[in-house]
Formats: sequence, structure tokens, C-alpha cells
Amino acid sequence: MAAIIDTVRRVTIDLGERGYDILIGGGLLDTPQAFDGLPRGGAALIVSNTRVGPVYSQRLAKVVAERHSSVRCIELPDGEAHKGWSALDCIFDTLLAGGFDRKTTLYALGGGVVGDVTGFAAACYMRGVPFIQVPTTLLAQVDSSVGGKTAINHPRGKNMIGAFYQPLRVIADLDTLDTLPPREIAAGLAEVIKYGPIADASFLDWIEANLEALRARHKPALAHAVQRSCEIKAAVVGQDERESGLRAILNFGHTFGHAIETGLGYGAWLHGEAVGCGMVMAADLSSRLGLIDTSYAHRLTRIIERAGLPVRGPRLGAARYLELMRLDKKSEAGEIRFVVIEAPGHAVVRPAPDALVAEVIEAHTG
Amino acid sequence: MAAIIDTVRRVTIDLGERGYDILIGGGLLDTPQAFDGLPRGGAALIVSNTRVGPVYSQRLAKVVAERHSSVRCIELPDGEAHKGWSALDCIFDTLLAGGFDRKTTLYALGGGVVGDVTGFAAACYMRGVPFIQVPTTLLAQVDSSVGGKTAINHPRGKNMIGAFYQPLRVIADLDTLDTLPPREIAAGLAEVIKYGPIADASFLDWIEANLEALRARHKPALAHAVQRSCEIKAAVVGQDERESGLRAILNFGHTFGHAIETGLGYGAWLHGEAVGCGMVMAADLSSRLGLIDTSYAHRLTRIIERAGLPVRGPRLGAARYLELMRLDKKSEAGEIRFVVIEAPGHAVVRPAPDALVAEVIEAHTG
Repeated sequence: MAAIIDTVRRVTIDLGERGYDILIGGGLLDTPQAFDGLPRGGAALIVSNTRVGPVYSQRLAKVVAERHSSVRCIELPDGEAHKGWSALDCIFDTLLAGGFDRKTTLYALGGGVVGDVTGFAAACYMRGVPFIQVPTTLLAQVDSSVGGKTAINHPRGKNMIGAFYQPLRVIADLDTLDTLPPREIAAGLAEVIKYGPIADASFLDWIEANLEALRARHKPALAHAVQRSCEIKAAVVGQDERESGLRAILNFGHTFGHAIETGLGYGAWLHGEAVGCGMVMAADLSSRLGLIDTSYAHRLTRIIERAGLPVRGPRLGAARYLELMRLDKKSEAGEIRFVVIEAPGHAVVRPAPDALVAEVIEAHTG
Repeated sequence: MAAIIDTVRRVTIDLGERGYDILIGGGLLDTPQAFDGLPRGGAALIVSNTRVGPVYSQRLAKVVAERHSSVRCIELPDGEAHKGWSALDCIFDTLLAGGFDRKTTLYALGGGVVGDVTGFAAACYMRGVPFIQVPTTLLAQVDSSVGGKTAINHPRGKNMIGAFYQPLRVIADLDTLDTLPPREIAAGLAEVIKYGPIADASFLDWIEANLEALRARHKPALAHAVQRSCEIKAAVVGQDERESGLRAILNFGHTFGHAIETGLGYGAWLHGEAVGCGMVMAADLSSRLGLIDTSYAHRLTRIIERAGLPVRGPRLGAARYLELMRLDKKSEAGEIRFVVIEAPGHAVVRPAPDALVAEVIEAHTG
């Protein structure tokens, strides 16, 4: 085990007393040392979903068993459609019926939905109990498990109800990606690709050169992709934990993407698929605003397509897209604000004329 | 107006960047200066209930109108029975349907239920928007609006789902107490009385001497009671915002009280009534543990009774009380922990034998 833990990559989120480590490596789910320093003594609840739970819950329960007075596992229904109040209340009901006290630790074992719901439950249960992220999808390992954004969806808008609440640690076992459906690998790659245009032009070059290796799940390539993604996210979150400014750039592609997800009904597209297509639109918008060359937008579109992601959005109509986007959390006084690329590796947040946005939507839907 | 604001009492909660003022005085609802320094420009939502809203919402809307791009008012159903998810979702639905953005300010205009639900909504909407407490009951002015505890009830336990989330200001207009039903004045006095045994023996002497004036709503007496209560609460919260220790003493009488509220069904007794009766039990427990003389417990019981509060609890049976109390947030590993008085003006948190607790319950119920 010492040998295994030696090969673990570590990224630190620097948030003072709320700071924590992200551990990235193979075999972490069977490595007790990966949990060293985390809470001991109280009860534990492992929250997973009906797809991941049967495969991994017992392994996680075994590795943390000696740390806790008891370990219980529950499974939420799988998918974005279930990221709402009923899933949250299922966790609360389990905790209250079982007499779980304020010393309870929650483990979020699964993808972005499990992590977001479990993190928000941890933020609210008895006004806050500790929680640990154990992401098992590429998307969760490179993005959603890191940085403390927790939320549930509301029928009227995605991630509208939530909290900034940091986990005590993120434990990303790369071996869990072996069993992931190809569609989920592609969805995760959308968030990996995102970090290139917004923060690191050379990382996009690397992704472009290693896309086949990533899709084929070559471990060294995945390890680098997860580590570099987490490093970039850690740097941004360390400067702006509660998204008063800079952090919004991490939402590149998400304004269009959330409109697709809410417009089609949660779960029709995977979040990463909507973000992939949303980045195509946001890159085109950046180009039409005169910020970047069309060649850069085309290059990014090609990479997104090669990752196995959709590059054309559903035909909801520009008016409906605009209506949905006006509810985006970055909007102010009814004005939609977009993350746009002003130069390769640099993003900014700014408004854009509705007519121009409508042109972008017409060009990339249907 | 300058004259009015000069007579305002101010208590400061010292929590660094989350610190804020409590303003206490007559006529504040008509005093624009009471709102100086609070957010401007965004939209406002005033959340009240069906009893308070018709009397005060329009006055508050008028005094803050020039600060906001728009002011909307909604009314929640009145009472503890409605302090749940449906009231919370009513606020979210209003906000999302109306396109309210992250610059929105929420105003909680009412008693403890309105303040707790609105504060929790502010904590969660788009992961946090600013809010201001405008308490209109004695209980809310002396306790629940101060200190940032927000929550909703769960069918299995009171205040189980919530957040520590501080308001930007508390504006306590004493004139709103003029229209309060006598039962609500008594309920508020329970929390005023509480501060004596836990923190300030001489304040209990003052309450004892001024109980008739308080029940008759003499303004100078009420002003002093609200100010001194807020000063004590501010001192405790300033040392322990998230209840890792000291702050738990503010829950004197609440462990028994919450069992009464949950056991009878929310709303059967007012929260302050349950706390009043709970303090009688907690004082007797302190006495049976050998911490204080029986004469002190009797004196406290007499004051609670003179305040117009119940001093005998409902006959739920000791087993049911114990079952309900084991879910209390202070419990650890199934052991109930009580706030007890170890000397007049000093409280501590400690466990007690079930058999002794059962004796206390038997002596004070039915």
C-alpha cells in the first residue's frame, strides 16, 4: 500500500481553514492511507446511486469501516433528472430515521449528481456535517467534486438551490473510470477541454495531441488530464471561492449548456454533452464579438467533436434559449453575461447583444 | 427622522466580515436611515406571513422602495406547522418565476418562522443572496433573528435542515409589538428569561422586578429587555458562531421544548411556550443533578408561570420524550446532552442518566 500511495498525485486547494487535498491515483478505494487525517469515531453514510453503488459501495465501506462507529450505504436514483428535492430528502430521511448525529461523515460516491446532492445535504443536515468526495466519473474527478459548489436543480433552473460548502478531501480513484460508459468519458472530456481555452493554451495543445489516448483510457494520459484540470480549478477557486468574479470563467460553455439541459428536461443530454455543445456556441460568440479568430473557434469545435461530443444543439428556438439563459446565475438585471474567450488561454465574462446571440444559436442548432 | 434614529439602541455582532448591527427602537419601519449602508440597486423580495404581511409589508416596501429596482411582497402561511420545504419552495418559485438574480435582497418580515425560512432561502438561492431581518415578534427580536441560525423543520425533527447564514442587519421596531397577541408576548418572554440563568444573574433579578411592565408592553422595559437579550446573544455568538461549544447554552430549555413541539405536532404549542416549560424541566434536572438549589429552580418556575407560560408539559410519556430528545442536535452517539444551570448565571452542557431525566418528565407533565 505504501507503494500505491507513493504514486498518488496530490493537488491542494488553498482556502485556509477550509482548504483540502485532492488525491489522484489508481487503487485508492482499497488504500486506507488515502483516508488518513479524516474524521474518525462518528457514524458514516455512503451516498451513491443505483449504478455505482452495487459496484463500489462495499469496497468503500470496507476501507473506512475501522474509522467509524457504523457505516451505512444508500443509493439514489441515477441521473440528472433525480437531482432535486426528493433525492435530498431521501438522504435527510435516512439520517434522521437512523439517529445520525452531528458527528456523522457523509461520503459522496459517484458522479456529479451524487456529489452535488450529497454535498448540499452535508451543508444543510443539522446546519453542516463533514463530507468527502469520492468521484467515480471523469467529469466529477476533473470538475464537479472540486471547489465546493453543491446544489440541486429546480424545475425552473439548473443548480439554482445550493451552497458553497467544501469537502474535507477529494479521493479520485482512476481505476473507477475503467467501467465508465464511453458516453460518460466523452462528457468528462468536455470539462477537461474547457480548461484549455479559459486558462492554459498549452494544455489544449496537449489534449489535442492525446485525445485518442484519453478516449482509450490510457492511465498516464488520464492521470495527467485529471491532475492538470484540478490544478487549474484549484488556482481559480483559491482566488475566488464564492464566485464574486474570476471563478465564473469556469462556466465557459455552461450558459448555453444549462439552457440545453433545462430546455430538453434534465437527463436528456448528459451535463458534459451540453457543455461541449455550449462551448462550440460560446467560442463562436467570442469570434463574432471579434475577440478571437474564427480559426480558433473551428479548432476548438473540431476537438470537441473528436472527443465524441455533440456540436449541434437541439432546436428549441433562439427565443427559448434566450429566455432560459436570462435565468442564469451570472445574469444581472435581466442581462445575460457570457464567458467568452478573449485570447487562447484567457476568458472574460461580458454581456452580448441578443441579436448576435440569436445568430449563434441559429448557426449551431437543429 | 434624525431625532428618531438618535434614540435607537445599537448592538453589534462581532464576526469580522460577517459582523452586523442590531437596531432596536420605535418607528424604525418608517425610518429610511435604519437601512443606510445596506445593498442598493438590485431587486427586493419581502417575505412575510398572512398575519403580519397585511399590516406591515406595504410600510416596509415603501421605506426601502428607493433603494431597489423593484420590490415584491409575498406571504407564507402563518405558524410553525408551515416551517418546512413547501414554504421554502414557495420562496424559490417566486424568485425563479420572477427572474430574480444574484443581486436580490430578501427581507424577512415577521416572527421566528418567517425569519428562519427566509434566512435559509437566502442561504440557498443561487448559493447565497443577502438578507435582512425585520423581526415583528418579541421572540424574534430577542432571539431568533439574531445570530444566523436558519432552518426548516423536518417531520422527524425540528430545525434539522438549515444553515449558519448571517443577515446583513437586524431591524427591530418595538412598535410592532403593540399589535402582538398576549400569548406571543409570553412566548417571547420565555427567551428573555432564558438569558438570566445561563448568562446574567442580575438580568433575572431585573426581569423578576419588571415582569408586569413587560407583559403590559411598557416601551422602556421592552427596549431594555430586547437590548440586554441581544447583547448576551451577541457575546455568545461572537465567541462561537457555529456552535462548536459555548453557543449551545443558548439552547437552555430547548431540548425538552423541541420534544414537546415535535411530539405534539408543530404549531400546537408556540415555540416560546415549549421553551418556557422546557426550562422548568431543565432547571429541575439541574437541581436533581445537585448543581443548584431547589429554591432556584422553584424561583425560575415561578417567573416562567408569572410570564404567562405553561409550566407543565403534555403527557407524551417519558419514553417518547427520551426518544425525541435523542434526535436533538446536541446528542452524540445516542447520548442526550442537556443545557443545565451549574450556578445562577452559568450554564454548561452535559449528559444525564435516562432514569433521572424520566423522573423530571414524570414530575412536570400531565
